[in-house]
Amino acid sequence: MKIVAAKKILKANDQLAEENRAKLNAAGVFCINVVGSPGAGKTTLLEALFDGLDGRLRPAVIEGDIAGSIDAERIEKLGVPVVQINTQGACHLDAVTIAAAADGLDYAEIDVLVIENIGNLVCTAGFDLGEHLRMVVLSVPEGDDKAAKYPAIFQGSDVLIITKTDLLPHTNFDADRITADMKRLAPRAEVFQVAAMRGDGVPSLADWLVGKCKTR
Amino acid sequence: MKIVAAKKILKANDQLAEENRAKLNAAGVFCINVVGSPGAGKTTLLEALFDGLDGRLRPAVIEGDIAGSIDAERIEKLGVPVVQINTQGACHLDAVTIAAAADGLDYAEIDVLVIENIGNLVCTAGFDLGEHLRMVVLSVPEGDDKAAKYPAIFQGSDVLIITKTDLLPHTNFDADRITADMKRLAPRAEVFQVAAMRGDGVPSLADWLVGKCKTR
Repeated sequence: MKIVAAKKILKANDQLAEENRAKLNAAGVFCINVVGSPGAGKTTLLEALFDGLDGRLRPAVIEGDIAGSIDAERIEKLGVPVVQINTQGACHLDAVTIAAAADGLDYAEIDVLVIENIGNLVCTAGFDLGEHLRMVVLSVPEGDDKAAKYPAIFQGSDVLIITKTDLLPHTNFDADRITADMKRLAPRAEVFQVAAMRGDGVPSLADWLVGKCKTR
Repeated sequence: MKIVAAKKILKANDQLAEENRAKLNAAGVFCINVVGSPGAGKTTLLEALFDGLDGRLRPAVIEGDIAGSIDAERIEKLGVPVVQINTQGACHLDAVTIAAAADGLDYAEIDVLVIENIGNLVCTAGFDLGEHLRMVVLSVPEGDDKAAKYPAIFQGSDVLIITKTDLLPHTNFDADRITADMKRLAPRAEVFQVAAMRGDGVPSLADWLVGKCKTR
């Protein structure tokens, strides 16, 4: 019974996700679902990425958090439109929540909509939000064994961003190992390495995003 | 309907957790539920802690993972009895799983049973496993805002271990901020700082655990 209920919920979510995607497509908005552990550096990555865009795209953000608005306040400071979702304890965003949050945004003013999901390397994996691309963020200090230990979320992602590479000299993280695991789980995925607070790798990532938005 | 079902599951879990705890009490085994994000350093902390015990307690471990047995193999190398649970995608351990896993252990040979939960700062918060103490592990590179952003898991924990303190000089982590947030959420909680790979703080933590087990 439990499994049947879960399948029904997922099916309903997938239908709503398709509706979300259709609306984004109609408005010409490219949408990215950013997932990763708590503290992987998702918000810091977005701050650096938006700075790196240098006006070439107009971003907006939907911020998913269990509680509070710490991340939304950081994004707002950049002059980027942001809608905060508080899940009150729920462990992932779903398509119906995104549909509601999108009402707070004017798609005519947006080129790229970034959804920052709840910090969770497990539960976010099963829910299509209507995005065009799923980006999984893994920080160097989390360790290079995470794709092996949490395969579903890596398998379902289109791009892996390895963050906090400035900490590489202080850890035993092997970027080759995680890249190999990612390629095995998601052969077409792209992999980037970034130290967002220092700016390393940000220009390449920003150029890639501009390319993605222009050629779709 | 969804909420009612969830409440029923939680109630059934709590009853089983009490049974687990009664069995542990009868056998004189002290049990700790270790929670934290993926990559917080839970397994490395246990390796260092068991070494620090220096034979004063006989530990055993139940390892919870989505997939694989990477962590269990690390524990087994120490000569510590370990049972691996693979949740096949499920985002937390529950009391029924622990009851089944405990069948693989001989409580007469154990002083302290450590349950390493799934790496998840959200879903593990709601499930009592029958432990005597919940330990939340937060690593320095995850950031000092995590108690504010994921309050439930910190509120329900008895002790906070701040790990990877060797990375303090390379981050903007403020130990005073997270300690203050923890004390606000869980006033009676104890807080330790550890750099498990280097050994800093491990002797104090090991002494504390020995004291907890002897005085209960």
